[in-house]
Order: sequence, then structure tokens, then C-alpha cells
Amino acid sequence: MRQSKLFGRTLREAPADAQTPGHRLVLRAAIAKPLAAGLYTWLPLGFRVQKKVEQIIREEQNRIGAQEMEMPVLTPAEPWKQTGRWDALEPITFRTKDHNGREFMVSYTHEEFVHLHAMQEIQSYKQLPQIVYHFQSKGRDEARPRAGLLRLREFVMKDAYSFDVDQAGLEKSYAAEHGAYARTFERMGLDAISVESDTGAMGGDVAHEFQVLTDVGEDRIVICTNCDYRANMERASRSLRRDGSGVAEKAAAPSEIRTPGATSIEALEASLQRPPEAFLKTLLLRDAKGTVVAVVLPGDREVNEAKLRKILGTSEVKFANDADFAAAGGVPGFIGPVGLKVRTLVDSSVDGRPYVAGANKKDTHLRDVVNGRDFRGEDVDAHDVREGDLCPRCKTGTLQIKRGVEVGNIFAYGTYYSDKMNATFLAEDGARKPFVGGSYGIGVGRAVQTIIETHHDEKGIVWPPQVAPYHAHVLALPVNDDEVRTKAEGLVAELEKRGIEVLYDDRDESAGVKFADADLIGIPLRVTVSKRNLKENAAELKLRSASDPEMVPLASAGERIVEIVGSWPR
Amino acid sequence: MRQSKLFGRTLREAPADAQTPGHRLVLRAAIAKPLAAGLYTWLPLGFRVQKKVEQIIREEQNRIGAQEMEMPVLTPAEPWKQTGRWDALEPITFRTKDHNGREFMVSYTHEEFVHLHAMQEIQSYKQLPQIVYHFQSKGRDEARPRAGLLRLREFVMKDAYSFDVDQAGLEKSYAAEHGAYARTFERMGLDAISVESDTGAMGGDVAHEFQVLTDVGEDRIVICTNCDYRANMERASRSLRRDGSGVAEKAAAPSEIRTPGATSIEALEASLQRPPEAFLKTLLLRDAKGTVVAVVLPGDREVNEAKLRKILGTSEVKFANDADFAAAGGVPGFIGPVGLKVRTLVDSSVDGRPYVAGANKKDTHLRDVVNGRDFRGEDVDAHDVREGDLCPRCKTGTLQIKRGVEVGNIFAYGTYYSDKMNATFLAEDGARKPFVGGSYGIGVGRAVQTIIETHHDEKGIVWPPQVAPYHAHVLALPVNDDEVRTKAEGLVAELEKRGIEVLYDDRDESAGVKFADADLIGIPLRVTVSKRNLKENAAELKLRSASDPEMVPLASAGERIVEIVGSWPR
Repeated sequence: MRQSKLFGRTLREAPADAQTPGHRLVLRAAIAKPLAAGLYTWLPLGFRVQKKVEQIIREEQNRIGAQEMEMPVLTPAEPWKQTGRWDALEPITFRTKDHNGREFMVSYTHEEFVHLHAMQEIQSYKQLPQIVYHFQSKGRDEARPRAGLLRLREFVMKDAYSFDVDQAGLEKSYAAEHGAYARTFERMGLDAISVESDTGAMGGDVAHEFQVLTDVGEDRIVICTNCDYRANMERASRSLRRDGSGVAEKAAAPSEIRTPGATSIEALEASLQRPPEAFLKTLLLRDAKGTVVAVVLPGDREVNEAKLRKILGTSEVKFANDADFAAAGGVPGFIGPVGLKVRTLVDSSVDGRPYVAGANKKDTHLRDVVNGRDFRGEDVDAHDVREGDLCPRCKTGTLQIKRGVEVGNIFAYGTYYSDKMNATFLAEDGARKPFVGGSYGIGVGRAVQTIIETHHDEKGIVWPPQVAPYHAHVLALPVNDDEVRTKAEGLVAELEKRGIEVLYDDRDESAGVKFADADLIGIPLRVTVSKRNLKENAAELKLRSASDPEMVPLASAGERIVEIVGSWPR
Repeated sequence: MRQSKLFGRTLREAPADAQTPGHRLVLRAAIAKPLAAGLYTWLPLGFRVQKKVEQIIREEQNRIGAQEMEMPVLTPAEPWKQTGRWDALEPITFRTKDHNGREFMVSYTHEEFVHLHAMQEIQSYKQLPQIVYHFQSKGRDEARPRAGLLRLREFVMKDAYSFDVDQAGLEKSYAAEHGAYARTFERMGLDAISVESDTGAMGGDVAHEFQVLTDVGEDRIVICTNCDYRANMERASRSLRRDGSGVAEKAAAPSEIRTPGATSIEALEASLQRPPEAFLKTLLLRDAKGTVVAVVLPGDREVNEAKLRKILGTSEVKFANDADFAAAGGVPGFIGPVGLKVRTLVDSSVDGRPYVAGANKKDTHLRDVVNGRDFRGEDVDAHDVREGDLCPRCKTGTLQIKRGVEVGNIFAYGTYYSDKMNATFLAEDGARKPFVGGSYGIGVGRAVQTIIETHHDEKGIVWPPQVAPYHAHVLALPVNDDEVRTKAEGLVAELEKRGIEVLYDDRDESAGVKFADADLIGIPLRVTVSKRNLKENAAELKLRSASDPEMVPLASAGERIVEIVGSWPR
């Protein structure tokens, strides 16, 4: 490919609104460009990377026997309504109507539709297990599209769907996909770890995310210093050190203390000179249906919204309003669990010690409030873990929290969809049984940018060879020197004939511009054919990832390049 | 691939609403299945075909130097509004809004957006010419989705866009794409002819369609019996034999005749006993903006709506209403050009003879009405050609009309978009000039079904080898015979190792079912490993396109199959 005709112009500076190093490099190196907020076009260089990433994903799916197919982007409303996701997904999806008024969704994922197909194509247990997958554009009406390809409003996802006869089969398929994902990310140069995750809009109970740890990530990942426990913050738990047991028996009955204006834990800390864990924090909340609930936590813990949503089986949790407070008998700023007339959830972090809690009376708190004695509630895990907490698995290590980018996710949803859609097959015993399924997603664009986020230096991208847009970047210096141009073009022709993918910088630009662009675009092997090198009948080879070049005789440069490229992982 | 686990079940009967032989076979052979009217999923067998078709298109685009990229499906409204296509395309497109109320179109094509990118990526004439392309889903809200993959509401199109410095450059790019298209269709087994076509919603003046002649086609294609003239009916013209010249001078002045109730040409023929070409047909029509126009044709000619839309520069032509008739001074059923007070278009088929025409008076016509003497109007070509008309190019051959499926189209629109969008580059003389462009489309799904429409027999599909889902279909008969199964699986493993794509029918089904499915699916080479053949240590090879099988020793069957497959075109 002649760079003079490449559709894609490098930029010295990234636009000011580029948010992460990878985002800046995506724009500067002409990997992709936006058409609107969250809508990006792959320019030819990026398209080649994306195709290589896609091919790695495809090969690993095929290796576990998954079959490729392709479902449409526009999906009719009825199956979404059958599973209840038409309404649930409304806030983050795009909808359209045809001229007859029929509704469609720009597909969010394809669980409903792959089940419709499975009902037609799979009749008997003899045809199971099966995994099918496709690469298809998804629409997400993200309120905040972010950082280029990391959070888009339209992106291509590889989504795979497994169908099994039973839970044991699903576990096998799930394990196969888990293995395929590990190989997939490793092959594309991503150091992704598998973490336990929340199932969110997908349903079911078991789910993992593949996370690449990097500061640009939006997710918080909890990792044990000792064992293999890894979980998304939305799902992470901890082993509880039950302090204060036995203390409660000795505690006095609750008694009022005056706390004028102390409506926050911080204010109480200051006024009573006690640490935050001495207090109880009581939150009055409403779910998507308007049902009100109180959540009680120690003053030093934060409520975890994802856990709470799951406990309540709701898509949304908001703060309660004044009427809710009145109905529950609580006073804003001075609410506490004692005497509260509402469903109460007591977080597992609340132990047996006597706490200071709101008295449900203006400017007043209660001291010596004991859980189980002075109030009762459902025992739930609704708090954020934090650095230093005890690992829930090994109960020895402590928890660390890192930032991560979710590059893949897998869900074992079982019969969540087949039950709702009555999607059944003929089982061995002659009965009709629901498919037992899972789904498995990888966002292609996010994977590409995450590769850049984790493979660059101050000069530009440093592509892992297996996903680089080209193998070699041949620079002719200067291109208007007949001998240089002739030799460079001869080398390019030889390399292309031998299957090496070459970007040939034939532009009439200075050495400085060409070297800077080569570093920015980050093709693994730079090959310089220059007037100076030609005096010694040599070409200069330099790996993007190495600091020192290698001089080789021009006559054997092709051979040497083929050898280097052949040594790279595929 | 083991057929027992294939996601896709063959059907003995096609659903009753399948409209063409190809549509029936698409469904019966599990190539693709609908999710809703006009929304189809590629099942794994069809997906493989589609990928091969896509790869042929890609290779031929790359051969002429086109660069692959990928623009999104959702496109923001503003650029569409800039070119006036937001409103023009409303009736046949899907629109959506995000939660902030911003409008998007499920893209119809990408001219506007590729111009936006070109403005950013191409700065100077030195970077030109360029051709870029992508494969991307398009939405079309077709009122009548039709015949499976022939007319879908969502389909993947390869659309390419050329950018040149001037008209001469465009002509070169256009010719390169024309050549690429001819090779592309030939390679996928389609006998496509290039015909002149209307430019429709694309703008510009020069356009060709690639048409495959088949009775299932919706388009009418006009072909000269003598020369290479080929045009879509929407665009076709004819050489006029000007009859009756000199007759007019001798004609009497118009005089009224009583024609009670004769409001149609047929009624006039019956009542006056004259042939249809003796009459003038006057149509009163309104365009999309409500402007009224009269069109005058001989009684034996039909108006061509596409030509008329183009003449009027409108997207729609409807019949006029009563108020329009009153304003023009015409009487429905008895309208004629003499004395009509409205813009009048006189079709070029109207010659100098004296005609019978409506008198604009109830139950009355005029005889001896002569064009140019008794009425005047703009001379236009607004009529359908018909079988037997004289070729407009060689003026010797006569025209034939055939049915065709449009599998590709190419448009040389010049500066139609760049003018409206102010999309310019720095020309050699230092001035900024608009890009001169063309666009080039191929619908992948329609191509696949058209291959089936033209490659099948009464038993099923007969795939051209270069696009077949697999090379060989190995049948084990019966599969529960240990020796048969072992030998068959050994052969399959050998073939796959040697790069042959194999569908292996390992199902516990009868020979009749397996042979019928093999014929239905239409893989080019059927390989039968049966109990009977094994007695002679042989396997049976049969080409789908041939009637007689070939027996080969089992030991050399792999070798022979590799040889056969190697002899096929790629």
C-alpha cells in the first residue's frame, strides 16, 4: 500500500477532547474517526487491525466448534416484549418504526432471536450441544459515549450463544468459551483477567468479565493479594471480621442525644468525636416501581448500587422523596432503623456493637443501638468492598482495587430466555425441555483501543505483530531520488510477493516527518531505504519495540524481513 | 462440519408464501431464515456462501486499488439534510432519535459520510485518485419486501466511493469499477450484463446496472437484437420513425365528434373503429410539490414514470385532482391538449399526423388535431419503449424486453455531493476544487439468491464451486455401521487436513433422506462411503452438476477429491 494514497492522514496533535492515550492515538494515527458522538468509522489502517482481531476471535470460536451465522441489526419488538426486555432496555437502546407503525430495536444483543432460530433449527437432544455466533453491529444509546472506541453508541460485537440439554452441559460450554476467551485475548496481545461479575440485563446468575487492568478503565476490579479471587466491584464481597460480638449484651438501652444540624456522618464525626464506623447510616430508597426500602450500613461503608438492584430485582434505585419519609416515620438527616415502618435491609457489615443511629426525630440521634435487639431487618450484602478488606475466598489475603476495561463478558443464564419464550427441544426421555443457554460477547472496537492503551509509548502505538495493520513499513528517503525509489519499490514488490504486508511511505516528505509517522502508526518493523544506506548497499531494519536498528545488505533484506516476520506469533 | 450438529435443518416443503424458486430453496436448504418481513438471518450454510461472495467482491475491489474501511450503520441527520436527502429518502428509510432528541438514519447509503471523511483525510490533489469501500448493513423500509433475499429491508451492501480531481479521472475510476464488477459477477457464477440505468436517488447523470436476466426479476431490461444497446426500461429510449410527416398540411381543421361515455382509449377504439395509435392520450399529473402538468402521448404508448420524475425533477408523480382539472380547463375522460391552460409535455412518440384527442368538453372529442398546429408543448421522451421498437443506438436492430435482477449498480455523480457539502481539495493550480465522485454498490444477499435462481434444478441448488458452502459432502451410509463410520471419518479428516471444506453427513438417517438433502443443499461434490461400496473398497464420487457417479478406490479417494476441487475456478 502506497502511503501517498492512504485514506487516512496522521495528525501531529490530537483534538483537545480526546480523553485517553489510546483515544488520542486512534485519532492521530488515523485508526478511526468519529462521524458523531459515539459513532466511529474505521479508516483503512484501523480496519485492517479490526479484521485481524476479528479473525483471531473467529478462529478461537471455530476451534471450540462454534458455527458462524449472521442475524440482522434491526429486530422486531415482539420477542423483546416476550422476555420483558423491550421496556427494561428502553433507556439505552435505539428504536425505530416502519411506515406501517411496527416497532423495531437497533439490536442490543440477540438472545431473543437466536432462541427463535434455535426453536426452528434444533428439534432434538441429538442435535445438542451447539454454539453459534456472529459479528454484528449493536446500538447502545449511551448517555456518555467515552474515550473513542472504549464506549461507543454503535459497535461490532462478536456474540456467541450456547444451547445445551442441561446445566452440566451448559457448564461445559461455558468452560469452553472461557478457555476460548483466554486464548483469544492472549493472541491479540491483551493481558486480560477473568473476574466474577454481575449479570445485569442478561439474566441468570453466573457471569464473568475479561478485564484488562489499566488506569483508563471505568470498572473497578477487586483482586486478592493471596489467591485467585477476582471480581468486579459490582459483585465483589469480603470475608467479615465480626467485631464487637458479646459487646451488645453489656450495652445500655438506647438513649437520645442532641445532635442539632448533624445530618451527615461527617458532621456526626466532628460533633461527637467518634470514628465513622461508630455510626449507622440509614438510606431510604425507592426502586423502579416506587417501592420504598431502608438500607442500614455502618457509617464508613458505601452502598453498592449494583448489588442493591439485584437484591431488589429492579433496574433502578433512587433516593426516596418527602412523602416516603413521612410514610416510613423517618426524618431526613436524622433517620435511623429503630421504629422505622418500612422494609429494612441490614447490610452484613453491621455487626453486634452498639451504634449511634438517627432517632427519626429532628436534631436527635440514639446511642447504644444494637442490631437484632433494637431493630431487625433482612441480612444482605449491599456494600462496596474496599482496599484491605479480607478476601471472601481464601480468608487470608487482602483485597486490592484496580481500574479495568471490560473487553469480554460471558453469561450462563440457563433457562432465563427459553422459559419466557417457551423455547424447547425434544429430550431423550421424550419430554419437551427448555434449552439451557449462555451468551458470550466481545466488543471488537473496544478490544482494539485497549490494545493501544496498553501498547504505546510517547511516540505512538507499538502494535503487537499479530494485530498490526501491516508487518513492515518501508520508508524511501528521499523518494524523489531515482535510485532510492527504484530500490525501495523493488524491495516492496519482493516482500509483497512473499506474503509480507507492507505500507510503503512513498510520500515526498522529510525524514523527520516519515520517522515520526512510522513511530506514530507503530507498524512492528520499519525498513529504511535511504541514499546514505544505499552507499553501503544496505537497508536499515528497526523493530518498533526495540531501540536499536539492524543494518542488512539490501540484497538479503527481503530474506531477513521474511525471517523476522515468520518468527512472530500468529 | 458434522451435519448432525449443523445449525440449520432442511425442509421437505417450502412455506407457502415463498415466492420464487430461489426463495423456496433458500428456506428449504437452510441458507437463510426470516426473523420478520424483510429481515433475514444467514444460517451457517448461507453464511459461508455469503462470505465467499464477499471475498470475491473484496478481491476485485482490492485489485483496482480500492481501500477497505467501515462506516457505521447509524448516521446523523445533518449531512443528509445538507444534500436534501433527509426528506427525499423519508418514505423508504428507518429513522431513530437518541434520548436527547438527535435524529439518525439507519443508513441508506454513505455518500454524505464518505465525503465528510474525504474532506478530512484528503487534502491535496497529490493524494488523488482514491477509491474506498466497505461492507455495511443498509436499511430500506420497503413497502413490499419480496422473495426472500431479493428485496430485503436490511441487507449488507458493498458500497465503494471514488474521488477524483476531474471528470476524466472519474471516467477512469468508473471504468475500473465497471471492469471489477464484470469480473466479480463472472467469478461468482452470475451472467450479469451491464445496462444503462436511471440515477434515481443518487444524483448525477451516468449510471449502469448489472442485471442478471431471469424471469423472477422485477426490472424490465431492454436489449437490442443487433448491437450492444442495453438499458433499464426506466431509462431506455428508441429511435423514432417519424410517420405522417406531410400529412398534417393536408389535414382539415379540428372538428368535434360526439363520443358519449368514451373516457378511455379502449372505448374510443370500439366506438370509432380506429387503432389506438390514432388517438392522443392526455394525462393530467401532479408532482411531489403539487405542481400540475399535462403529458400527451399516442394512445398506444404508456407513460414511463421514472423518465417523467426525472424530467420534472421530482420524487413522486400522482394523478391530478378535480380542482386541478378545473384550473387547467380539462374535463376528466375528455381531456385533450387543445386549449389546455397548463404546462404541457408532448412525448416524442407523438408525430405529425392528425389525431383524435379529447375536446375538454363532456362526451366530446376532436378529430384532426395536429401537434404544433393545434397545440404546442415541450418535446420530451416520457414513454415506455416496447418489444419491436427501433434501437436508439444502431437504428437497425429491434428492441427486446426481458426480466432482470439488479445485482449491482454504479453511478458517476460527479460533484453532486461535493458541491452541496463544500467538499474540496487543494488542486494543482492552488485553487480549492470539489471532489469528482462516483459510487458503486453490490447487494450481497441479493447476489447469493440470484446465484440460486440461476443455478438449481428440480432437486435443489447446484452451487457454482467457487461460492459453494463446502467443497465436498461426505455421506456415511449407514452411520451406525462401525466400519462405514470409521472409514468415512478417516476420509473426512484426511480431506480437512488437505484444505478441503467438508460437510459430513453423520446423521442416523436413511439413504433416501441423505441423498435428497445432498441434492437440496447442492454442494458440488458428493462422496458416498457405504457398506456396499466398502465391499469393493471404493467410494462413490458424484458431481452435483453431473448425472453419473465415479467409483474410486477408497485409498485414493482423498487424492482424487483434492484433484477435482483443485480443478475448479476460484
